[in-house]
Amino acid sequence: TLSKDVDESLIEKFIAEVDNLEIQENLRELTKVPHMATTAGDEKTVEFMLRRWQDSVSGLDQAWREDYKVYLSFPNQTQPNKVTVVSALNVVQYTAREKEKVYKPDQEDPEVVQPYAAYGPPGHPKGKLVYANQGKASDYEHLNKTVDLRGTIAIVRYGGAGRAAKAINAAPFGVLGVLVYTDPLDINDGIMSDIDETYPHSWYLPPSGVERGSFNTDFGDLLTPYLAAKEDTYRIPKEDITGIPPIPTQPIGFEDAYALICELGGDASPPEWRGAFNCSYNLGGPGFQSSSKFNNSDVKLDIYNREELKNSANVMGVIRGSVEPDRYVIYGNHRDSWVHGAIDPSSGTSVMLEITRVLGKMVKEGKWRPRRSIIFGSWGAEEFGLIGSAEYTEEYYSKLFQRTVAYINVDISVFANATLRASGSPSAQSVIFTAAKQVKTPGSDSTSVYDNWIRYFNRTSPTYGLIPSVGYLTGAGSDYAAFMHFLGITSMDFAYTYDRSKTKARIYPAYHTAYDTFDYSSKYIDPGFTSHQTVARTAGNVLLRLADSLLLPFNCRDYAESLEGYLNVALTNFKDELAARLISMEPLSQAVTRFRTAADKLNSVIQDLDLSKVTPLEVRKINDQLMLLDRAFLDPLAFPDKYGFRHVIWASKSSGLATFPGLADAFQRAQNTGLPADWSQAHKHLSILVQAIAGAASTIEDVM
Amino acid sequence: TLSKDVDESLIEKFIAEVDNLEIQENLRELTKVPHMATTAGDEKTVEFMLRRWQDSVSGLDQAWREDYKVYLSFPNQTQPNKVTVVSALNVVQYTAREKEKVYKPDQEDPEVVQPYAAYGPPGHPKGKLVYANQGKASDYEHLNKTVDLRGTIAIVRYGGAGRAAKAINAAPFGVLGVLVYTDPLDINDGIMSDIDETYPHSWYLPPSGVERGSFNTDFGDLLTPYLAAKEDTYRIPKEDITGIPPIPTQPIGFEDAYALICELGGDASPPEWRGAFNCSYNLGGPGFQSSSKFNNSDVKLDIYNREELKNSANVMGVIRGSVEPDRYVIYGNHRDSWVHGAIDPSSGTSVMLEITRVLGKMVKEGKWRPRRSIIFGSWGAEEFGLIGSAEYTEEYYSKLFQRTVAYINVDISVFANATLRASGSPSAQSVIFTAAKQVKTPGSDSTSVYDNWIRYFNRTSPTYGLIPSVGYLTGAGSDYAAFMHFLGITSMDFAYTYDRSKTKARIYPAYHTAYDTFDYSSKYIDPGFTSHQTVARTAGNVLLRLADSLLLPFNCRDYAESLEGYLNVALTNFKDELAARLISMEPLSQAVTRFRTAADKLNSVIQDLDLSKVTPLEVRKINDQLMLLDRAFLDPLAFPDKYGFRHVIWASKSSGLATFPGLADAFQRAQNTGLPADWSQAHKHLSILVQAIAGAASTIEDVM
Ligand SMILES: [Ca+2]
Ligand SMILES: [Ca+2]
Ligand SMILES: [Zn+2]
Ligand SMILES: [Zn+2]
Ligand SMILES: [Zn+2]
Ligand SMILES: [Zn+2]
Repeated sequence: TLSKDVDESLIEKFIAEVDNLEIQENLRELTKVPHMATTAGDEKTVEFMLRRWQDSVSGLDQAWREDYKVYLSFPNQTQPNKVTVVSALNVVQYTAREKEKVYKPDQEDPEVVQPYAAYGPPGHPKGKLVYANQGKASDYEHLNKTVDLRGTIAIVRYGGAGRAAKAINAAPFGVLGVLVYTDPLDINDGIMSDIDETYPHSWYLPPSGVERGSFNTDFGDLLTPYLAAKEDTYRIPKEDITGIPPIPTQPIGFEDAYALICELGGDASPPEWRGAFNCSYNLGGPGFQSSSKFNNSDVKLDIYNREELKNSANVMGVIRGSVEPDRYVIYGNHRDSWVHGAIDPSSGTSVMLEITRVLGKMVKEGKWRPRRSIIFGSWGAEEFGLIGSAEYTEEYYSKLFQRTVAYINVDISVFANATLRASGSPSAQSVIFTAAKQVKTPGSDSTSVYDNWIRYFNRTSPTYGLIPSVGYLTGAGSDYAAFMHFLGITSMDFAYTYDRSKTKARIYPAYHTAYDTFDYSSKYIDPGFTSHQTVARTAGNVLLRLADSLLLPFNCRDYAESLEGYLNVALTNFKDELAARLISMEPLSQAVTRFRTAADKLNSVIQDLDLSKVTPLEVRKINDQLMLLDRAFLDPLAFPDKYGFRHVIWASKSSGLATFPGLADAFQRAQNTGLPADWSQAHKHLSILVQAIAGAASTIEDVM
Repeated sequence: TLSKDVDESLIEKFIAEVDNLEIQENLRELTKVPHMATTAGDEKTVEFMLRRWQDSVSGLDQAWREDYKVYLSFPNQTQPNKVTVVSALNVVQYTAREKEKVYKPDQEDPEVVQPYAAYGPPGHPKGKLVYANQGKASDYEHLNKTVDLRGTIAIVRYGGAGRAAKAINAAPFGVLGVLVYTDPLDINDGIMSDIDETYPHSWYLPPSGVERGSFNTDFGDLLTPYLAAKEDTYRIPKEDITGIPPIPTQPIGFEDAYALICELGGDASPPEWRGAFNCSYNLGGPGFQSSSKFNNSDVKLDIYNREELKNSANVMGVIRGSVEPDRYVIYGNHRDSWVHGAIDPSSGTSVMLEITRVLGKMVKEGKWRPRRSIIFGSWGAEEFGLIGSAEYTEEYYSKLFQRTVAYINVDISVFANATLRASGSPSAQSVIFTAAKQVKTPGSDSTSVYDNWIRYFNRTSPTYGLIPSVGYLTGAGSDYAAFMHFLGITSMDFAYTYDRSKTKARIYPAYHTAYDTFDYSSKYIDPGFTSHQTVARTAGNVLLRLADSLLLPFNCRDYAESLEGYLNVALTNFKDELAARLISMEPLSQAVTRFRTAADKLNSVIQDLDLSKVTPLEVRKINDQLMLLDRAFLDPLAFPDKYGFRHVIWASKSSGLATFPGLADAFQRAQNTGLPADWSQAHKHLSILVQAIAGAASTIEDVM
C-alpha cells in the first residue's frame, strides 16, 4: 500500500456518484433562511454541516466546530440607515429605500439585513451631491479640477476600485459621505425595468437591489492581525484599523441612484464615466441642477452601523489518510452569506457537501481511504473579509505550513453555466487539466469540460500550444487568500461561469442582494443543477488525485513557464529604465533560468522514475519538493503594509502589468515620483525577487 | 537499509579514531599567519579547508566555496588610530600603544591588525576624560548626576554591556568618544605584571593586550538585512545602519588604561565600579586630577577606521545521505580570526577538520555513508558579526527550513580544560547526554564527560533529578544564531571550559588579542590537545547520532520541561500585575499544559514503537514532527527591531529573568513607563507566545 497510486476506477466511480439532485437539495436546505455570519441562520447552517459530516452513513471520520471572536459591523435593526434629500429648510424631499422590493417570500424574511457598507463608520453627513464615477483616486482628482469637493457627498458606482477605496480616496478631498450603487450598464447589460425585465422575469437585478459588502482593504479579523482571534487574544485599538472608510458610506439601488444622478447639475461627465441611465451623469454643481425639484438641496446620510465582537464558527471535517496522514489536502468554502446566499456561497457549500457525501460513504463502507488526509473547511465570516479562513491559518500556521499539499476553494460554484473557470498556482495546472479532460460538460457524454473550456478561455503556451487559460490567484477574492498568499500553499479556485459574449455583467446580477435565492439560482443560474454537478466532479476529481497519487500531480515546469512570462513582461517594461539607474535585471534573468533548468531536470527525474521500484522515501523526497515549492516564494517582510501577502510572485498589486507585484509597484512608484529613495525600493524588490526565485530553484535542484 | 538504526560500533570506532595530534597539526597549520576575514591569511585558510575536504583519501563527497560581498570595517594601515593625552597647548603628553608588545615572533607578523573597534566611525574627538564603569546606560546615568558629560571622552571596561552599547549609551549624554579596555580584575584574576606573571609566563593577558571586536548590535551583513550579500544585491544606505557606535571608539590595553584612569580627578567611583588597579577609579573632574602631570589635559582620539565591501568566503563540504539525502545535519564554525586565532576560532576549526578526516575516510573507504546528509560549513567574517553564516541562511532559507534536522556549532572548542559546556535547544539535551556519557574525559578511561560535567554545572530537573545543566542559546554569541533564531533549527554549541572556582576571567585572557596563538594554546589552554580531542569526540558523536539514527534522538518532553520552567518564572513575576490590568495569563498556562500533554503522548508513541515493524513513512512522520518542532516557535513579526530573531522562546532579551523574552521585555518596559500602550504591548507579546506554544503543541499532537 505504500506505493499504491491513484485508482482511476475509483475516480470514475466518484464522478458517477456525484448527483445533481443531491446538490439541489443541499442548496434548498442551506438557503431556507438568511445566514449572515454569526446570526441564528448561520448557526443553523453550522448545525446542518455538523449533522451531515457526522452522519454515520455518509459522514467524515470526524467533524467539529472552531470558534473565533471576531470584529464585525452591522446596521442597527431598530434604527435603519437612511439616505435622504433635504431642502435648505430641512424638509425631506426624497428618501431612498431601506429595503429591497419584495417579489418572493424570501425578501420578506425579517432576517434580511438592510443593505449597508460593513465597517463604514456611523455619522450624519450632509452636503451637495457630486458624481465621482467609480471612486478611484483618479476619478476624484479629475472631478476636483472643476468642482470644489469640500463638504460634498459623492455618489459612485461599483467597479474599478475596491469598496473601501471608494471612500478612502474621497476623504482627502473633503468629501463627507459616499453613496455606492450598481449601474445597470455594469450589472444588467443596461436593463432596468422590473415590470417585465429584471428578476423575477430574468436573472437581472431589480431596480431596488443593492450589493452589500465588506468595506475593508485587508482580510482577516481587523483587530487581530497575525493572531487567531480567541477570547483573550490581544486586539489592536479600533483607531489603529486601516483600510476602512473614514467617512459614512452607504450602498443603494440603481432606482435611487437614478433619482439622484439624473438631477445633478454641473457639467456633463466624460462619456466613459456614464452608465445606462438616460441622462448625462452630470458631475454636480456641486449639487442638483437649478431646474430640479432638488435644487439647492443636500443629500444626507444617517448611518447607524456599529461594530460588535461576535463568535464565528468554522466547521471542520476530516478523512484520515492511510499512508501519509501527515499530508493534508484541504478543500474549503465559506458558509456565511449576506442574505440567503444561494449562489454566494451556498452553491459552493452544496457542492462541497455532495463531495463529502460521496467520499464519506466510500470511507464508511470501508471501500476506500485516501493515501493523504483530507481536511474540509466550512469557513465563517468570509463576507466580512475572509475572516474564518484567515484565523484558521493564523492559529495553525506551523502545522499547515509543514503538511499541506494543496488548498482547493470553491466559493460561488456556478456564476453561469457556460464554462469552467479555474485559477491557481501554476504547479496545479496539469492536475486541473487532467480532471477537466475526464469530466464531461453538463448534458453531454462527449464534450469534456476541458474541450468546452478551451473555447471560452485559452492562451498559447510556449510549452503546450493552445490550452485553456488558468488564472493566477493574485488577489484576495475568496478564502484561498490566506492559503495562497500567507501560507504559500499551492491553491486553486474553481467555478462555472459566463459566456462573455452573452453578458457584460461584472458578476451575476443578484450578487450580495436579497435576490440571491434558491428560486433565482434554480431558475436562472443552473436549472437542473448540472453545472453545480460538473464543478463537484471536476474539483472532487482534483481533490482525489491530490489525495491519492503516489507522486503529487504537480508540474514545476509549468511554474517555470509562468515565471518566464512574468520575466519577459518585466524586462520589456523595466529593464532600460532600471539600467539607466545602474540597477541590473541580469540576476533576475539568471534566477529564472536557474529555476527553469532545475524544473526541467526534476521533471525528467520524475518521468524516468520506475514507480514499481522506487522506495517510499524517494517518493516522499520528490513530493516534499513539489509540495513545498510555493512555500519557497514566501517572504514575510516583502510587503509590510499588506496583511497576509507573503508570496512574492502572486501578491496583489496596483500595477496592471502581468508581472512580479513588488517590483512592478515599486517601479511604478519610482517612475511617478522620480525620487532616488523610490528607485532604491525598486532595487530592493528586485533583490527580494531574485532571492526568492533562486531560493525556490534551489529547493527543486538535487537535494544534495 | 531503510530501517537501519545508528550503529554503536561505528560510533566507538569514530571515538577511537579521533586523534589529538591530528588536531594539534591542524591548529599549527591554521595559525601560521593571522587570518582576519578577507585578508590573504584568510584566503590561505580557504584553500587549506578546500584541500582537506577535497582530499581523495579523507575528504568529503564534495566541497566548494561560496562568496559574499560584505561590509567590513578596518583601521587604516598607513595611518594608525591614535590615543593621546594633549595639554591645553596641544602638546602630546602621553601616547597609548598602537601595537601589542612582542613576546614571540607571532606578534611581529606585519599582518597583525592594530587593535580597533570595528564599525566605530572615524573622527578626532578631544575632551576631558571620565570613567564610566562598563558603559551601561545606568552607568552613564549615574555618572551624569555629578559630572557634566558634554564634550568628554569616556573610558569604560569590557563587560556588562555589548561592545557597541558602550558607545551608543554614551552619545546621548554628549560624550564625544569612548575608550574601552579590559580590567585585570575581569580578565586576569587581578594579575598585571608582564615581568613574570602574564603571558608568556602564564595564560594571563599582558598589559598591552587589547581585545579587538566588532562593535555592532545586529548580526549579519549590515547593508543587506534579510538578503544574501551578492554583487548586485540591494544595499541599504550606510546612514540607515543602526546599532553601531555613533562616536569614535577605540580599545586599549590595561597598561594604557591604568595610566589614564589612575590620574583621573573628581570623586572616587563606587566600589563595584572598580577593578584591579591600585587607585580609586575616580570619575573624572571631568578630566585629570590637579596633582596629575595631565592636569587640564584632554584625551584625544584619532580614529581612521574605514568601511570596505569585501569578498568573504564560506567553505562548504558535504557527505551525501544514503536513505534521506533531503535531511541535513549541519556542523559549522567560523574560519576567520582577529589575529592568529588559535583558540578563536581555530581550536574549533581544527576539531571540525579532525571530524571530517575521520568521517571522510570512512566514506572514501566505502565503509559508511550516513542515513542523512551532513553539511559542514566553515563560515567567513564571523568576527564582524556572524556574517558568513547569516548570509548563508538568508540565501538558502527555504531549503534549510524544509530539510535541516539540526545545527551543531563548535567555535572556540577549548576555553580551558576543566569540563564540557553545552548549550542548545531543549530537544537536544538527551542526545547530548547520550554522547557525553559515551566519551571519556581527557586522560581518563573511566570518568565520562557526563560524570565530569555534572560536577561543574548541574541543576535539578523535575523529570530527571540532578543532571548537567545545558544552557539555552538565547543570544547571538556565535554562528548558531542564524540557525537557532532566524531559521528555528534545533541548534547546539559545544566547548570545553573553565573550573570557575579557579578563575574569574570573563573569557580566556588572550581572547581577540595578538597572544591567541598556537604557542599560547599548546602551553596554557590544552597541552596535548586532549580537551580538543574530547570535544571532537563528543560533538562528532552527537553529529553521528543525528545523521544515522532511524528515529531522531530529540526529546520533546525536555522541551516541555523548559517551557514549564519559563512559565513558572513568568507567573511568579508577571501574573498579578498583568491581572490588575485585566490581562490573563491563563491562556499561556493552558498552552504550556497542552504542549506538555502532547509531548508526553508523542514520547509514549515513540517508546512503544516496534522499530522492526514500523514503516519508513511512519518513522518519517515522527521525525518530521521532531525536526520541525523548533521551527513552530518562529514568528517573523514578533521582534521587528531585532534582526534575525524570530524564535519567540529563545530570542535575546534585556530582562534578566529566565523566561519568555518578548513578554519579559514588554512587561519590564510597561512597568517602567506605566503607559497603557506599553501594557498593551505586553498583552500582545503574551498572545504571540500563546499562539506559538499552542501552535507548536499542535505539531506534536496526532497528525490527524
Ligand atoms: Ca486574527
Ligand atoms: Ca545579508
Ligand atoms: Zn463568497
Ligand atoms: Zn460574497
Ligand atoms: Zn569565535
Ligand atoms: Zn571571536
